[in-house]
Amino acid sequence: MKIVIDCFGCDDPRGFTRGIPAALHTYEDIEVVACGPASLIRDYLGDLTFDRDRLEIMDAPDIITNEESPVEAIRRKPNSSLAVALKRMKTDPDCKALISAGSTGAVLVGSILLIGRCKGVARPGLAPLLPCDNGKMMCVCDSGANMDCKPEHLVEFARYGSRYMSSVYGEEAPAVGLLSVGVEEKKGNTLVKETHALLKDSGLNFIGNVEASEALSGRARVIVCDGFDGNLLLKSIEGTAMSVMTRMAGLMKKYAPEGTDMTFMKQTLGEMLHTLDAGSMAGAVLLGVKKIVIKAHGNSGEKTLPFTVGQARSMILGGYLKEEDL
Amino acid sequence: MKIVIDCFGCDDPRGFTRGIPAALHTYEDIEVVACGPASLIRDYLGDLTFDRDRLEIMDAPDIITNEESPVEAIRRKPNSSLAVALKRMKTDPDCKALISAGSTGAVLVGSILLIGRCKGVARPGLAPLLPCDNGKMMCVCDSGANMDCKPEHLVEFARYGSRYMSSVYGEEAPAVGLLSVGVEEKKGNTLVKETHALLKDSGLNFIGNVEASEALSGRARVIVCDGFDGNLLLKSIEGTAMSVMTRMAGLMKKYAPEGTDMTFMKQTLGEMLHTLDAGSMAGAVLLGVKKIVIKAHGNSGEKTLPFTVGQARSMILGGYLKEEDL
Repeated sequence: MKIVIDCFGCDDPRGFTRGIPAALHTYEDIEVVACGPASLIRDYLGDLTFDRDRLEIMDAPDIITNEESPVEAIRRKPNSSLAVALKRMKTDPDCKALISAGSTGAVLVGSILLIGRCKGVARPGLAPLLPCDNGKMMCVCDSGANMDCKPEHLVEFARYGSRYMSSVYGEEAPAVGLLSVGVEEKKGNTLVKETHALLKDSGLNFIGNVEASEALSGRARVIVCDGFDGNLLLKSIEGTAMSVMTRMAGLMKKYAPEGTDMTFMKQTLGEMLHTLDAGSMAGAVLLGVKKIVIKAHGNSGEKTLPFTVGQARSMILGGYLKEEDL
Repeated sequence: MKIVIDCFGCDDPRGFTRGIPAALHTYEDIEVVACGPASLIRDYLGDLTFDRDRLEIMDAPDIITNEESPVEAIRRKPNSSLAVALKRMKTDPDCKALISAGSTGAVLVGSILLIGRCKGVARPGLAPLLPCDNGKMMCVCDSGANMDCKPEHLVEFARYGSRYMSSVYGEEAPAVGLLSVGVEEKKGNTLVKETHALLKDSGLNFIGNVEASEALSGRARVIVCDGFDGNLLLKSIEGTAMSVMTRMAGLMKKYAPEGTDMTFMKQTLGEMLHTLDAGSMAGAVLLGVKKIVIKAHGNSGEKTLPFTVGQARSMILGGYLKEEDL
């Protein structure tokens, strides 16, 4: 199976590109199509040893930056690494998944324009993963692609989010929760109340409303919300986690008796940060387009790319997309 | 100045009532009107020493519970501790502030029906306080009273939130931030973009959009949002803080060398919880009604009531309400 990688538009194209050999080593059944300025890609990979027969380089001299308007950029830069990658996805049935760490907006707009939406999907949504207290992963959909949504859009997020978690983690019917301000059915704003009614009849494993306070508990494996609220939830979790860790580190220094060996505290903070990073390592999946598209974190590099490739491979093998979607 | 206290409808009426003497000791310029079943109030206070001339007990045999519909409860229980307290507020110009730890919905509905909205206010909002990283307090408004809002409602929250922080903390023009998914003006949903335009011309110290990730930084002293998102933000902060503390405590046990004296860790967690509690101690203010109304936390008790009374007193002395509001 072929996985297309847009090597540019991210913070560290060199590191990101240099993750490809490790991915090829780890997964022996994949081939990679790397898009970007060919001479740079060759240069980045020059000293590394790997099976070069399983790597194809597609030259794409242009790069789309985060500063550009996504719609304009996709239209005006047909030779950008992202546009070339998307066109390859569109025309080559062997290419099953695309990974890009470039501009989120451009990946989103480009995928909708060039790959197209699944049948019956009006609004593809972006679904990142978060590590829960019970050690499992949970996805939030939508996390920022769609600011103003209708109830039927949230049902689409639920349907594809459920399929996503099922394909990657092998769970038959992942628990779907609707983000609200109380667990009772009548709690929430108009959007949430109308969505609740639709989700009850969706055939999904809908467990009702979940509150933001229990998002990390892992009770719901798919948390459904509009993109504004999903973004709010993710950023609030991120900000609070950093704030609490910083405050606790400060307090421990204050209270620890003089001479206490604080190595274990560094280990604690290190593992804590690592856990929180687990989500961003995976990248966010664009749910509801006709191929698998993963938006990796902008600061992805050599160490995280193999993880994201593994996620794409799981989705391909797990049957995330169905005949009826196309 | 007289402060009316609804002593019932909370988790621990005895503890809450027994906080009154401490409040009277602390603030010598206040008098308290305590509402609830008179014999019970007398019984709760029986063994305590305080200036009984500054306490008036208003008998109110009924109690409104959290399980009742707020509108029904206020209508059908005119002799409940909350309804009696509200009627006293309405009729007695000496009564400047009301504190209740009872049903949030009933306090909200009752205050609007019996005390009335400030001139020009369509939707009073609930504003709790949160402790920021810089040691200052910040309020979120609305935090759950209004699920579906219009831009002008958010401007009202901003105006009264600003006045509130100014009256309690003496800051002339507290920084007002609009909760959104990016700091750029064009980021957000329709509600936020329209509100942004109005806030720019509001005459308030509007610092633009703030993201959920920086909510606890203290850059904005008033965070403005609809009640759905405010509730989401608060619960997400609460849930994440508990999750991170629990995970860190577990990791420290794992990494600490055998025999390490972990007393300092308990002190750390204790102070951390205390800091997080600082917000709930203060209670949430119902902004935009014609008197000061504070909804104390349902589990408020003997230790927290004096703090809430002090907050009410600061608002009275700080000139939170103006002639033009009435």
